[in-house]
Amino acid sequence: MTRPTPKTRADFAHFETLTTRWFDNDIYGHMNNTVHYQLFDTAVNGHLVAKGILDMAAGEHVFLVVQSGCDYFQELAFPGVVHAGLRIARMGNSAITYEIGLFMDGADTAAAQGHLVHVNVDRATKRPVPISPSAREILRPLRVDGAV
Amino acid sequence: MTRPTPKTRADFAHFETLTTRWFDNDIYGHMNNTVHYQLFDTAVNGHLVAKGILDMAAGEHVFLVVQSGCDYFQELAFPGVVHAGLRIARMGNSAITYEIGLFMDGADTAAAQGHLVHVNVDRATKRPVPISPSAREILRPLRVDGAV
Amino acid sequence: MTRPTPKTRADFAHFETLTTRWFDNDIYGHMNNTVHYQLFDTAVNGHLVAKGILDMAAGEHVFLVVQSGCDYFQELAFPGVVHAGLRIARMGNSAITYEIGLFMDGADTAAAQGHLVHVNVDRATKRPVPISPSAREILRPLRVDGAV
Amino acid sequence: MTRPTPKTRADFAHFETLTTRWFDNDIYGHMNNTVHYQLFDTAVNGHLVAKGILDMAAGEHVFLVVQSGCDYFQELAFPGVVHAGLRIARMGNSAITYEIGLFMDGADTAAAQGHLVHVNVDRATKRPVPISPSAREILRPLRVDGAV
Repeated sequence: MTRPTPKTRADFAHFETLTTRWFDNDIYGHMNNTVHYQLFDTAVNGHLVAKGILDMAAGEHVFLVVQSGCDYFQELAFPGVVHAGLRIARMGNSAITYEIGLFMDGADTAAAQGHLVHVNVDRATKRPVPISPSAREILRPLRVDGAV
Repeated sequence: MTRPTPKTRADFAHFETLTTRWFDNDIYGHMNNTVHYQLFDTAVNGHLVAKGILDMAAGEHVFLVVQSGCDYFQELAFPGVVHAGLRIARMGNSAITYEIGLFMDGADTAAAQGHLVHVNVDRATKRPVPISPSAREILRPLRVDGAV
Repeated sequence: MTRPTPKTRADFAHFETLTTRWFDNDIYGHMNNTVHYQLFDTAVNGHLVAKGILDMAAGEHVFLVVQSGCDYFQELAFPGVVHAGLRIARMGNSAITYEIGLFMDGADTAAAQGHLVHVNVDRATKRPVPISPSAREILRPLRVDGAV
Repeated sequence: MTRPTPKTRADFAHFETLTTRWFDNDIYGHMNNTVHYQLFDTAVNGHLVAKGILDMAAGEHVFLVVQSGCDYFQELAFPGVVHAGLRIARMGNSAITYEIGLFMDGADTAAAQGHLVHVNVDRATKRPVPISPSAREILRPLRVDGAV
């Protein structure tokens, strides 16, 4: 296990505010480790929908998760609000690596952080398709790799 | 199947604002019917925790759900914010019947409504115990049965 | 709250065997009340898919839940296998009321029981459509209302 | 993104058979990426409970997840049974790295594979504690690192 350093809010380009739920807490009284991934999905796809890049219901292309990971530093729990910070670490021809930090309300250091790799695919064939120039432009403010 | 009339916001005494999640949507592209119950739990227990009536982690008594139900009138879906209206229809010696309405942001008519029956139990023995006079007093504003 | 009597295995016409999951248990160490509905959905839709009545991905009609309810008598929990008993209480022109009992492995009395009301709808318009004669015939063994 | 090669059944030392659920499928009609982690948790903790190494409800120590990750190669979906293969890649003083492969019924190549890092902690203080010699002995058949 390689253990990264927790990121801070300044490391992220965009934030989504997410409410926790009673059943996020498992038998140990804290957010179950699988819920963090629900929040990752929500922050990333929520941003894509808001920006008009993803049309979940009718779009000809969608983004599928091909890899994910998370490091858990501190407990998150219901009740409480989570701020999900978002940034793009890498963007290839059809793949985007998002990095997400989860912050408890008021905290500056991430309680957990992880990544999702999305591949842009044709909805019917599920074969990779290139990310459009317009989507690249819209997502540019999230990029931390210096690339365009 | 008996089909009730959808309630409106004016029918509820208290509201909690809850964010939806990507995975709330099932294969039909709308909130899966089981998620509504997650929101019911969250609205009810969130209020009880906020009011100091429920200490999930360490309290000597907790509230267990012994009955629940929901009528679905309109689709809820991610993305979108849900307002959960709360009221108490009946309060017995140890049982409380909560009624919950779920409203899409901006809507005045409930997209779904249901109920939860909580029984106050001793945490260790799980036997019913009476609801304390102080809890009754705190919950009084939610009651619509005219009782005290 | 009207409290029904727990049903027994003999009350049900068909059974599905379902495994529990670590995260089914909530902070109280037992199956969270919302998971029962996941099991209801799974038992009912699993049977419909197996019988060729529901094509989730491509069918022109699907079944949407318009009402659900559950009574919780005893705790269910991970680890453990749950047997879900299934029967049809009522079948109208486009609506079917399923009753489901959840039994712990080895138990003859339901730990929880509830119902789902499905409405058969056109996938695109989401308007009710009649249940086909062939589906009625396939589902007949589940019916306890004496009707055909 | 580093993309590993899918493992086969022969790479794993122990298997758990898990049923899928209706709501495992998300809007894209396949198992949502967060459900894989529910299955990881279930396979690992289910084995620990069965072997008497974990007492979720009353044990003085429990295992908390501090890191997790998954690579998704092929779709999993309801309906269908998943076989979760389990092995231990590393065992330190208080941490265990489990590797899990998820196989569709009948398939020899993993549809998805990932890892969980568990840290053995004191239940009250949540501070790491050493894994006992008896637990090490019980888990030895899962180890692929050649160590004892």
